[in-house]
Amino acid sequence: MQIGFVGLGKMGYNLALNLHRHGYEVVAYDVATENVKNILLEGIAPAFSLEELCQQLNGRKVIWLMVPAGKPVDDCIETLIPFLSASDIIIDGGNSNFNDSIRRYKYLKAKGIDYLDCGTSGGVDGALNGACTMIGGEDEVFSYCASVFNDISLPNGWLHAGGPGSGHFVKMVHNGIEYGMMQAIAEGFEVMEQSKYNLDLEQVARVFNHGSVVRSWLMELTEKAFSKDPKLDAIKGVMHSSGEGKWTLETALDMGIPTPVIALSLLMRYRSQQDDTFTGKVVAALRNEFGGHAVEKAH
Amino acid sequence: MQIGFVGLGKMGYNLALNLHRHGYEVVAYDVATENVKNILLEGIAPAFSLEELCQQLNGRKVIWLMVPAGKPVDDCIETLIPFLSASDIIIDGGNSNFNDSIRRYKYLKAKGIDYLDCGTSGGVDGALNGACTMIGGEDEVFSYCASVFNDISLPNGWLHAGGPGSGHFVKMVHNGIEYGMMQAIAEGFEVMEQSKYNLDLEQVARVFNHGSVVRSWLMELTEKAFSKDPKLDAIKGVMHSSGEGKWTLETALDMGIPTPVIALSLLMRYRSQQDDTFTGKVVAALRNEFGGHAVEKAH
Amino acid sequence: MQIGFVGLGKMGYNLALNLHRHGYEVVAYDVATENVKNILLEGIAPAFSLEELCQQLNGRKVIWLMVPAGKPVDDCIETLIPFLSASDIIIDGGNSNFNDSIRRYKYLKAKGIDYLDCGTSGGVDGALNGACTMIGGEDEVFSYCASVFNDISLPNGWLHAGGPGSGHFVKMVHNGIEYGMMQAIAEGFEVMEQSKYNLDLEQVARVFNHGSVVRSWLMELTEKAFSKDPKLDAIKGVMHSSGEGKWTLETALDMGIPTPVIALSLLMRYRSQQDDTFTGKVVAALRNEFGGHAVEKAH
Amino acid sequence: MQIGFVGLGKMGYNLALNLHRHGYEVVAYDVATENVKNILLEGIAPAFSLEELCQQLNGRKVIWLMVPAGKPVDDCIETLIPFLSASDIIIDGGNSNFNDSIRRYKYLKAKGIDYLDCGTSGGVDGALNGACTMIGGEDEVFSYCASVFNDISLPNGWLHAGGPGSGHFVKMVHNGIEYGMMQAIAEGFEVMEQSKYNLDLEQVARVFNHGSVVRSWLMELTEKAFSKDPKLDAIKGVMHSSGEGKWTLETALDMGIPTPVIALSLLMRYRSQQDDTFTGKVVAALRNEFGGHAVEKAH
Repeated sequence: MQIGFVGLGKMGYNLALNLHRHGYEVVAYDVATENVKNILLEGIAPAFSLEELCQQLNGRKVIWLMVPAGKPVDDCIETLIPFLSASDIIIDGGNSNFNDSIRRYKYLKAKGIDYLDCGTSGGVDGALNGACTMIGGEDEVFSYCASVFNDISLPNGWLHAGGPGSGHFVKMVHNGIEYGMMQAIAEGFEVMEQSKYNLDLEQVARVFNHGSVVRSWLMELTEKAFSKDPKLDAIKGVMHSSGEGKWTLETALDMGIPTPVIALSLLMRYRSQQDDTFTGKVVAALRNEFGGHAVEKAH
Repeated sequence: MQIGFVGLGKMGYNLALNLHRHGYEVVAYDVATENVKNILLEGIAPAFSLEELCQQLNGRKVIWLMVPAGKPVDDCIETLIPFLSASDIIIDGGNSNFNDSIRRYKYLKAKGIDYLDCGTSGGVDGALNGACTMIGGEDEVFSYCASVFNDISLPNGWLHAGGPGSGHFVKMVHNGIEYGMMQAIAEGFEVMEQSKYNLDLEQVARVFNHGSVVRSWLMELTEKAFSKDPKLDAIKGVMHSSGEGKWTLETALDMGIPTPVIALSLLMRYRSQQDDTFTGKVVAALRNEFGGHAVEKAH
Repeated sequence: MQIGFVGLGKMGYNLALNLHRHGYEVVAYDVATENVKNILLEGIAPAFSLEELCQQLNGRKVIWLMVPAGKPVDDCIETLIPFLSASDIIIDGGNSNFNDSIRRYKYLKAKGIDYLDCGTSGGVDGALNGACTMIGGEDEVFSYCASVFNDISLPNGWLHAGGPGSGHFVKMVHNGIEYGMMQAIAEGFEVMEQSKYNLDLEQVARVFNHGSVVRSWLMELTEKAFSKDPKLDAIKGVMHSSGEGKWTLETALDMGIPTPVIALSLLMRYRSQQDDTFTGKVVAALRNEFGGHAVEKAH
Repeated sequence: MQIGFVGLGKMGYNLALNLHRHGYEVVAYDVATENVKNILLEGIAPAFSLEELCQQLNGRKVIWLMVPAGKPVDDCIETLIPFLSASDIIIDGGNSNFNDSIRRYKYLKAKGIDYLDCGTSGGVDGALNGACTMIGGEDEVFSYCASVFNDISLPNGWLHAGGPGSGHFVKMVHNGIEYGMMQAIAEGFEVMEQSKYNLDLEQVARVFNHGSVVRSWLMELTEKAFSKDPKLDAIKGVMHSSGEGKWTLETALDMGIPTPVIALSLLMRYRSQQDDTFTGKVVAALRNEFGGHAVEKAH
């Protein structure tokens, strides 16, 4: 089976390799020619434009997009459309907002082009050795591609969640949960790190991973991180985010569902990106006004 | 009526003056002799030890303590006891934990000494010109001192809340509410300060104070703070705290009551005192482990 | 000066009266004819359609909209357009999202029609006796209407905040702050209500209003509410919301600003609208799975 | 090696069996004679009082306590003391507060009796088949008992964390993390359950467990719970708690560390135990006062 693969970033590169190793005829394209040349060395057929990519695919085309969420996906789809025929399939395997996926599904459907949204988890390593995929879209289209998802995923590691958008929706919520779990773990380790006990945090993470209630892949990664840098001295505590946590919260707000832990996980990430806060200035100013409490001077 | 006054910090000094201006014979003591000498210039009788203070009081002694919460209050009480007689009255007007006040009430009661706990709000200015006082203790003891509270407080600005500890309890909750109100105001002004609109925040606070739902003394202080420093450029956003918010949360936890806004107001104060966080380091490390997301290097 | 007034709900009715009492020639319309007939009895000129309303206005028309946020505002504007001339002015005095106001400003501008967004606070009573208004829009347009805002507002109770959208933006943030202040007050009173002290909550609110740091209009309303129903026994603790708190949080999220207190105030409102939660079911199920902790049976 | 075992509840019963199966000579006691009789059928020596239990132990006694935290542990220790000799060892394997463990360590140390605190995780099943143990106490005492911990725990499933109290401290933080992880998972599943997609939540949990970032034992238990009751219809969403989450938060507060996710996980448990809230009543009353918003009537 042939697969057109668009986007050879960290995740995409490994996924394309994963497909290749499972016997798929992958034709790969990336805006960075360098990435295409690299993957060519792995035995994957190169394409240097989306047109060229489409020309190399026969029959009902299946094109996997692994490009940044938002405009890049829309741009890519627009460029592809002229080279596609009825019932060709675009799979968006990136981190798109599920509302965008619903919109794109409808847009492509009107042109006779099929569409699947696929949330992909498991990190860079999973992309290569067995991902976790959550797929949304029509039954017939999913069935046509089922072997792809089955082959690149771990056993039981794929789910056709439901209709259009549901793949990215489930993946989005997955990430919301991930935010909360990570923040919970991190808060606990801060309490331990600052305690009077001189704890070996790698050892603590290790014992947590052997029989405790909180054993998890994230705790294994915690153990691994501490094995490299016992106090994480080299790392600044700035927590970036790439959108899914915010979308989960926004979705929950639209549904009227209270998700305080996911909300605070996100807000603390924002807070970590601030050196000083205007909120703090206002509170400090007010304490000074009513109680004469000294403020600290900004330098 | 005579009043022994112990503790001439910002609040204590003004309260002692307030009593003096209302015609009370104030005898004042402070561990810092300087403060005693200063208040002497205002016409208030000085005492240079607690013993000397007690010697100058006749009949049923009334001694107002305005010293830092915790050990200083206990130390003060221990030192006073030998110089007190049955039914003399100690009023703790400071920011003591209500559980300590209950303990002290019982301890002194066993010795025949009376005790009132008085939460005092209104800031430094209120201490001089009309405070807000919340008093806990026995009816008879309160009645004996009622004129004191009436005179130093604004009209309707005092309340005999209930039995021992209730004054400090109500004041503690007042401060918990204060934390939440301040954080809410501050968050709102951060959103406005960082918006695309170049808002005049003093003007915004002013309009909020004239007819809006959020008009309040704290909003007036906000207006005042912006009138002095339109962007609070001189102030660092470090929010200190002096205990009552924490006690409110701890009390709520003991009662099984969810108080998320008071909780977060306190936690954000703690956060403001951290330059970098171990929590952030752990989350950043985890994102790097599973997704290869770059971490920022600690200097 | 003539004013066309559209929307005679609780707020609109009182604002129209307020304008009338200040000498404006008000022509009023509402979808509910009943409301128009009522206000006619107050001496205000009635209109039974938007067309009729416009026909009664001479020169540069000024039309104040006080209709529910969202589609009703758009519908109203669409219906009005054919009857408006260049430089006529629509003022949206309702609770519109500031992003909608920016969009409407641009839309009307392209047709030569002027537009102001006006956030109105102070409740039903303020609408009648002196509101608090925050206005966004072009300087010339604001100037033309300045007397209107000055007359219906309390002294210092209006602010031309800035360009289009800024009026509703500032009002939105005002409401976000209001959510936080209300939740803070409410949490504190829950702690007091459930304490071992049998506190008179009306008295507590009263003392808070006389000299304390948390004195505020909301605390006065708290006092008033307890004066009517000392334990609020007749009221169910369901907290509805009308959008501005959510918009404040969404705006903060878009700006990357952590606003935990505003966030939690909103989330606790959502929580109050749930009888039981799926979140709770999941946690209870998990505790049962790993620890054998008994679950409570749903009826 | 002989072990005296006190407390045969769900966890204790299984731990005693676990020890027995590893060849330890267990002598077991429980306040409920029924439990002692049951475990006798498994071939474990019974004791019907703590005195009798001590009489059956030779040499340096090792007594494992698995009784409810708080007074039961203190009572048990008091009763045991007369029957213990210098350097006998009490291991508290229950969920004690680490501050209590430090106090008990010092108290027993003064009497020459040794003490270890052991946090035990892994649930009822782990207790039988391989627990996760975190031990605090002196090196020599730990070494004497090392084989016990090694035998009842999974490989790598034990850690001598540090000095007295550190075992229960690390276990406490473990539970704080657990609260946060559970709440994060539960919030995510609520968002999914209430979505427009008719998701099969068991399938979702299953796919999450095969290669996703959130794969974990708790997610496996989530899958299991949904396999039994796909919508958890039989379970009421009341989330109880047994103390460790609260202790973690209190400890963090004492250390000045912001732990918002752990805090909110706890507060939402408290909230789940309330049918209606006074907080909600106050907010509803205030909305009615200023905006005329209708309140819902209680009962």
